[in-house]
Amino acid sequence: MTEDKPKRTELSELGEFGLIDRLTRGIRHRNPGTVVGVGDDAAVLSYPDKKILISKDLLIEGVHFDLVYTPLKHLGYKAAVVNFSDVAAMFGFPRQLMVGIGISNRFSAEAIDELYSGIKLACERYDVDLIGGDTVSSISGLILSLTVVGDAHADQPVFRNTAREGDLVCVSGDLGAAYTGLLILEREKQVYRADPLMQPDLAGYDYILERQLKPEARTDIVRLLSGAGVRPTAMIDISDGLASEIIHICNDSGLGCKLYEEKIPVDATTSSVADEFGISPVTCAMNGGEDYELLFTVRQEDYDKIKDMPVISIIGHMTERNEGISLVSRNGSLIGIQAQGWDAFIGNKKIPR
Amino acid sequence: MTEDKPKRTELSELGEFGLIDRLTRGIRHRNPGTVVGVGDDAAVLSYPDKKILISKDLLIEGVHFDLVYTPLKHLGYKAAVVNFSDVAAMFGFPRQLMVGIGISNRFSAEAIDELYSGIKLACERYDVDLIGGDTVSSISGLILSLTVVGDAHADQPVFRNTAREGDLVCVSGDLGAAYTGLLILEREKQVYRADPLMQPDLAGYDYILERQLKPEARTDIVRLLSGAGVRPTAMIDISDGLASEIIHICNDSGLGCKLYEEKIPVDATTSSVADEFGISPVTCAMNGGEDYELLFTVRQEDYDKIKDMPVISIIGHMTERNEGISLVSRNGSLIGIQAQGWDAFIGNKKIPR
Repeated sequence: MTEDKPKRTELSELGEFGLIDRLTRGIRHRNPGTVVGVGDDAAVLSYPDKKILISKDLLIEGVHFDLVYTPLKHLGYKAAVVNFSDVAAMFGFPRQLMVGIGISNRFSAEAIDELYSGIKLACERYDVDLIGGDTVSSISGLILSLTVVGDAHADQPVFRNTAREGDLVCVSGDLGAAYTGLLILEREKQVYRADPLMQPDLAGYDYILERQLKPEARTDIVRLLSGAGVRPTAMIDISDGLASEIIHICNDSGLGCKLYEEKIPVDATTSSVADEFGISPVTCAMNGGEDYELLFTVRQEDYDKIKDMPVISIIGHMTERNEGISLVSRNGSLIGIQAQGWDAFIGNKKIPR
Repeated sequence: MTEDKPKRTELSELGEFGLIDRLTRGIRHRNPGTVVGVGDDAAVLSYPDKKILISKDLLIEGVHFDLVYTPLKHLGYKAAVVNFSDVAAMFGFPRQLMVGIGISNRFSAEAIDELYSGIKLACERYDVDLIGGDTVSSISGLILSLTVVGDAHADQPVFRNTAREGDLVCVSGDLGAAYTGLLILEREKQVYRADPLMQPDLAGYDYILERQLKPEARTDIVRLLSGAGVRPTAMIDISDGLASEIIHICNDSGLGCKLYEEKIPVDATTSSVADEFGISPVTCAMNGGEDYELLFTVRQEDYDKIKDMPVISIIGHMTERNEGISLVSRNGSLIGIQAQGWDAFIGNKKIPR
């Protein structure tokens, strides 16, 4: 018996149009707003009764992702979901996605199939139509450029700058897990570099690895809140860390806030890995980023509607501007919140230890 | 007296949000469909009575542009216009633009200002609103990712696949100039490399250099045709060369065509430079690309309406599929048309000499 070698098809064999055909074959649309997708100079959409939400993201190998520990299918899934999260953060639902890919000839057509299979899986899970894009060659690494289109619940997007004094500050899920997942992946990468025969030791870290490699967009929270008749007064998704995002809401709304350390939801694995690395878990939550949870404010009158939702934590309240943006620590001391998350021009996390 | 040195502000001094503020300050919107632009997780648009056209492009340094001879302001202008052209090619008008930029720290904030000034100039000229985007760091070169949104004249986009047998094939402007402009720029780059003290000799080439460095989107042709009551049966813009684009229209419409070499509009400078390089001018027109002129088909009944439009050339007609896709040369012989334009995975022009 002969062993099957994985097939490698060079991109140059297919050419640009061959690759586009291969990637877009069999795409079906689910949303009535998608009139024409792939195949012409532009896609055609129709939103007669709704405002349109539109957002875009540029992801660059070596800056936003490391292919050493990111499977291409996961990368495709995450790239799509991160964009869907931007629409969820407007209290909306994603409907269409355009994908631009820059690839060097170090990638085979099969590798791009893998990447696309992750994008397609995300589109299926979130009922989003893939409507086109652009596929070009890059000189060095892999570049992903995504544009998402969606609409807001009840045609009323929720902005960042509309929180009001006294509103409750809420967050979905738990925070800091994606960052501790990254710490583990980076550690095992160093171990592997030192001795390529060492197997990575990832046992017990499933939850935080999945949070890093395969995050989800919290459209379920948009559904949950709107189903309960709760309309947030302001909303943002947590891509750069809780600190950076609450500062956006406070500054844009012209207010301050008080958050309570003991109320910030952190998973047990996140805590224990943070301890392992000598970082405080709350630092991971405040500055880690990439959790893609929703941070939002609601009116005090909505307290009864959300207090028993297990997936939502009330972590503080909005105050007058001159009270500042602060965290009440477990011992009762007041700490000013400063953004120390991801900075696109530094290119790595500035986590204080 | 001391000489003023140009100011250089490092991107790391500004940070991501500082740069975004700097670039987007003072942006005003002109289109009623632009509800909210820069500043939240997503922009908000409204198209209650119209279908939406949406298209995106990814441009990578060293593949799509060469900063040795491309001024940053021209690059920004061209990147925007190339996207507007995709909307014009649907018989539409661009309305909103999103811009993603990946930049390494080799660029100063002033360099990015230059790039943005070109993008903003294009937006002003074409009445397009800049509504947001993404600014990230890149490891090596400059990366531009643009998404354009627009609408079609009379809410009736024109597609590629709807040409009919007997329709006249038309093209706007003249072809091949952008490619001969590129030949000149590449030649002078080689001269400069061999001897950096040599001044580039660009005199007399203004027209073709402008066609390469600062193309325009033919929204004026959309206005001209719709004003005359002519609705093309199919339309595409010429980014890859006439050959590649007419093949798209023929294949997608299930037809053949006959084009006439003598009818293909070529400017005198284009011809003389092509001769200088030993390339036939028609080859530049067929395979050069980047002209961003419109290629379209109209019904024979519309002949009288377009025959005296100086900016439009009738270059052939659509035939049955089995007659093939062919060019009638000046000596009357029939040549099969093959696409030899830009291939994104080869990364350079395959011009036969």
